[in-house]
Amino acid sequence: MQDFIYYAPTKVLFGRGAELRTGELVREAGGRRVLIHYGGGSAVRSGLIARVERSLDEAGIEHISLGGVVPNPRVGKVREGIELCRREGVDFLLAVGGGSVIDSAKAIAYGVPYGGDVWDFYAGRAKAVKALPVGAVPTIPAAGSEMSNSSVITDEATGLKRGYGNDISRCRFAAMNPELTFTLPPYQTACGAVDIMMHTFERYFGTEADMPLTDSMAEALLRTVIESAPKVLEHPDDYLHRAQIMWAGALSHNGLTGCGNSGDWATHKLEHELSGMFDVAHGAGLAALWGSWARYVMHRDAGRFARLAVNVMGVDATGTQEQIAEEGIAAVERFFRSLGMPVSISELIGRRPTDAEIAEMADKCSDGDSHTVGGLLRLGRAEMEKIYRMAE
Amino acid sequence: MQDFIYYAPTKVLFGRGAELRTGELVREAGGRRVLIHYGGGSAVRSGLIARVERSLDEAGIEHISLGGVVPNPRVGKVREGIELCRREGVDFLLAVGGGSVIDSAKAIAYGVPYGGDVWDFYAGRAKAVKALPVGAVPTIPAAGSEMSNSSVITDEATGLKRGYGNDISRCRFAAMNPELTFTLPPYQTACGAVDIMMHTFERYFGTEADMPLTDSMAEALLRTVIESAPKVLEHPDDYLHRAQIMWAGALSHNGLTGCGNSGDWATHKLEHELSGMFDVAHGAGLAALWGSWARYVMHRDAGRFARLAVNVMGVDATGTQEQIAEEGIAAVERFFRSLGMPVSISELIGRRPTDAEIAEMADKCSDGDSHTVGGLLRLGRAEMEKIYRMAE
Repeated sequence: MQDFIYYAPTKVLFGRGAELRTGELVREAGGRRVLIHYGGGSAVRSGLIARVERSLDEAGIEHISLGGVVPNPRVGKVREGIELCRREGVDFLLAVGGGSVIDSAKAIAYGVPYGGDVWDFYAGRAKAVKALPVGAVPTIPAAGSEMSNSSVITDEATGLKRGYGNDISRCRFAAMNPELTFTLPPYQTACGAVDIMMHTFERYFGTEADMPLTDSMAEALLRTVIESAPKVLEHPDDYLHRAQIMWAGALSHNGLTGCGNSGDWATHKLEHELSGMFDVAHGAGLAALWGSWARYVMHRDAGRFARLAVNVMGVDATGTQEQIAEEGIAAVERFFRSLGMPVSISELIGRRPTDAEIAEMADKCSDGDSHTVGGLLRLGRAEMEKIYRMAE
Repeated sequence: MQDFIYYAPTKVLFGRGAELRTGELVREAGGRRVLIHYGGGSAVRSGLIARVERSLDEAGIEHISLGGVVPNPRVGKVREGIELCRREGVDFLLAVGGGSVIDSAKAIAYGVPYGGDVWDFYAGRAKAVKALPVGAVPTIPAAGSEMSNSSVITDEATGLKRGYGNDISRCRFAAMNPELTFTLPPYQTACGAVDIMMHTFERYFGTEADMPLTDSMAEALLRTVIESAPKVLEHPDDYLHRAQIMWAGALSHNGLTGCGNSGDWATHKLEHELSGMFDVAHGAGLAALWGSWARYVMHRDAGRFARLAVNVMGVDATGTQEQIAEEGIAAVERFFRSLGMPVSISELIGRRPTDAEIAEMADKCSDGDSHTVGGLLRLGRAEMEKIYRMAE
């Protein structure tokens, strides 16, 4: 096992009507002038933004708003937010929406007190030392950004999609109401379930992956998502199971499921290029790639894949480790399919990617063949291309 | 499921040599003048206090120290600490030791900025609104005080043992090195394992106990402790399994294993009177009482006890729910016994408690028949007495 740091200071208020306590939570966190950051019109039409505004009004907190964040959020919108916050003297960022909105708010939080351009952080040219405080009212259980230290932003000028992690951007609070997820369309619900599972898988595999407590809690979380996801697809207003998925989303990315294990993250890196190029949903992109990644790296630790197969996917523990591992990977893919998710790039984008597109993704993912990704097996440009091809 | 708040802001540094980073952690948390609080001489003799002092010195942080905290920590020592901190201008409390030391430090933290007597908080007469920051270098995995919001103090003048919970006392950091637990004697190791399991049991049972994700993670934690505890009793320097128990201790009491479930806590309340009266180890007291509590309340939710039996204790799932539940309770008691723990008061104190002693414990636990304890079944004075008698 590895040494680890666990730090998840976000105060979570979980339950019906949690969004009505936003004002009180902002005040407790010291906010006086808030930017409400959101995505499309659904948060407005559903009345959610109005409820949040009323809660802020009741707490005597001033607020302005900036909507229009899109999936795979753009640095252009982040820059717009930074200027707006400076001009209006905003001292607290309130993200109301899915992972894209929270990620965009974190990027604005870094940018406001920073002298240079915010992309510096995502390009690895600078480390943020200050950030405005951020709070979240999550509406999509998936990215886990409400408790994580990470955010992912796309530079629309270059198509580069990059993540940046820093504990100073961890949300001060998350007001989590599972009812807000009742209206999520089936496709987004399924993408979210995949994303949550993948945040757990990415920590479950790695060169050092032998922490019994973390492993067994991660497996418990995965089994719960696998049990609850089909239920909410069938009954979108099943509060109990929406709640399981929402809470699993936060726990799968707050660090808990990786304590002591080294992690892998290759599938995430490979997927960033996929959704950067084709603007597809992150969860669907992960589903399209994972099986190919798993088959490519499996021989490095077949026992671990077999453990996942038996403890999570319910595969019968007979046969060689390799056979059990293979069956487990196939079972994960069958589960993704059962949720309506793609398990290849063709299924994801409706056609086979061209050779040039695959080459470009491998180029970007390896920064022009200058760096590798992955933990269980380090992948260079050539390996990335092979996995993209396996997933064609 | 219940609405819940999850708030566990403690920054955990986990691994070999974690105590050597204390200075850096205190500085990060803003401390400048530290009181090192500890228990008996073992922390001095082992060189731990010297290592912590060196780390503080290297970070340029001033420090004084106060040892002598005893198990079931006394309010007298707390008052001594409060006076010392005021006199010396201490602005940060560093607890180096087990749960008693951390609890004592939390009590001092409440007391320093408070105008009245610190016992007010524990007697329920006042609510703390300010506290000095606290950090911990835990040496005994048991109480989970390094991540919890609670502390338990005994008034040696009256024998009353009372807990107080307030988020403002949650540790800023915990520097957790499993090697520090290698020298724990078998009895204390076993008491710790019981305490960790009980912190999980207390949240697992209750009137609302139906949160699948929390339940399955709690069961995973319990199985890990049951697997690791015998291993460390056999091999005290087994780093991996000492680490499982240490991390389980923190997670079992930081709130995670109770999210969405209402909890019970009757066994803890009944035990406080037991260790208040006989000055026994908390974990051993819990082991002595739990089976009797479980048999007394089992009929309220036999299905839940049966679930514990099957998912945690490996009981065969055949027979009625009641039969499976009974077998599960017996299996827990057999496990406690296998660790060298008592499963009755006689085994705990070496003789049967007198009628007067039982009556006094029931009186104190019910505050003179004026309040009840427990969640799954509310217990008044008469029920408390029955359970103490069942556990004789």
